[in-house]
Parts: sequence; structure tokens; C-alpha cells
Amino acid sequence: MALRYFEDFPEGYSQDLGTFRLSADEIMAFARQYDPQPMHVDPEAGRASVYGSLIASGWHTAASFMRLLVDGVLGDSASMGSPGIENLRWLKPVRPDEPLRARFAVIESRTSNSRPDWGIVRSRGEVVNQDDEVVMRLEAVNFFGRRPHG
Amino acid sequence: MALRYFEDFPEGYSQDLGTFRLSADEIMAFARQYDPQPMHVDPEAGRASVYGSLIASGWHTAASFMRLLVDGVLGDSASMGSPGIENLRWLKPVRPDEPLRARFAVIESRTSNSRPDWGIVRSRGEVVNQDDEVVMRLEAVNFFGRRPHG
Repeated sequence: MALRYFEDFPEGYSQDLGTFRLSADEIMAFARQYDPQPMHVDPEAGRASVYGSLIASGWHTAASFMRLLVDGVLGDSASMGSPGIENLRWLKPVRPDEPLRARFAVIESRTSNSRPDWGIVRSRGEVVNQDDEVVMRLEAVNFFGRRPHG
Repeated sequence: MALRYFEDFPEGYSQDLGTFRLSADEIMAFARQYDPQPMHVDPEAGRASVYGSLIASGWHTAASFMRLLVDGVLGDSASMGSPGIENLRWLKPVRPDEPLRARFAVIESRTSNSRPDWGIVRSRGEVVNQDDEVVMRLEAVNFFGRRPHG
């Protein structure tokens, strides 16, 4: 696949990033390392919580989205990194083995004033469950190299 | 340690969350699973990049901050989860083995209108390097149970 540049991500561009699911073992393994709260590491505590079951750490959902974004978008592009994320929202619990899909949509695309060889892409990323509910949403800013001339 | 409730996190409360560092092996292991961009998984590609070395995935830094937040704050509290994060900023690259420290400060604390037994705490989290530069900053919202009466 040809390398994609800033010019390949205009406002309105969107892309399906594919599907994933998190098993109970994966949820607990991530959480033991990074977010060892009871509802993420202990199925019994999850059942007793307001969430009613073991649920994934929101950071696990975010990192899993990132993996699909790299596989589908950033990995074959002139990606130059990201200064950050706005409005990372965990809207619904993510439960073991539920099928999830991710999508990416460009909401703003402009060239950089400080680095004319870079462009700045603002995007909305979403993770959706089988009931078509958005379980996670974020707005990201990514830098991309501009397509070389000639 | 006694369980801490919403009332224990008033506006202005702050807490040092301790220190951590990410080895090159840890940086690459996390990134191979969640963020396999060249500057996170390949030291040679990192050196050739604008960053000049292997650098940690921003999601790895965020997840590592979360671990310290759970160990220092959420783990011994009536934490009820989080609806999300605002303004997650990766301000400086995180390089292998550099010593980092994390801190937490409450910027707003109010009771919930919809759930009178919960309080809502908005906080600023920061990760700082040995040159006292903030490498990551975020604003989080967390729900805490209110202290029971009697």
C-alpha cells in the first residue's frame, strides 16, 4: 500500500478500523498492570459493583482503539506523532468478549504554520458495541508529513 | 489505611503519586501490542525520527500514570469510576529509563445532582521529568461515594 500523507486525510474522510473484543483474561491482565481497580481485576467485585460485571479499564479500550488506528491509518502514513487528545469519553462499560468495532473520521485538516512540511489532522475516533452504542469517543490531533513534490 | 470518600478530595487537595521509569524493553513491549509505530518499537527508527531516540507511546505514559493514581488515590477510596478525560496532552517525549514522577491535584469538587450519594471530582494529573518539565498532563473526572453518615 502506498504511503499516505496529510493530503490523504481531508475533512470528511472516514474509515472503518475493524473489530476487536477483550476477553476476561485480557481485561484482567491489562488492569493488573495499569488499573488494578476491583471492577477491572476481580469478576466477583465487578458483579457486586454498579456495573454488574467485570469491565475493561477505559485505558485498555483506548489502547486497543489505538492499535486499530495504527493498523488501519497511521502505520502506512507519514505520521509524525500526536500532541494529545481532547474529550476522551467512556460512555458505556466494556464487558468481556463483547464484539466492538472502531471508526475514524477527520473533522479538521490544515497545514501547520510553524512546520510548513507538516499538516495537522483533527479526528474523531469511536468504539461502538453490538447494540450500536458508542462506548468510547475521543478527539485526537495527529501530525502528518505533507506529500513531497516531484 | 481508612477508606477515603468524596469529602476527602476538596478543591485544592494535592498528592504526590511517586516515581516510575519505563525501560526500553517495557516501551517496546507495550507498543508492540497497542501502538506499533516505528519510534515506539524500533530504537533505530527512533534515532532516525524527529524525536532522536526510542520514545514511549503516549498511551503507555497515560496507563503508567493511571497505575500510580490507583496505588496512591483510587485504590483506598470509594472510587466509582470515570466518565472521561479532558485535554490529555503529550508535551515532551518520554525516553527509556528517564526518571519520572507523577502528581495529582483537585481542581473542582462538587456533589452529584443525579446521584446524591456520589461526588464528582475534577483533577489535574501531571507526569514530570528530571528537568522538571511536564511531559504529560490530563484533566480527569472521577466519581467518589460520599462518606456515610452515622
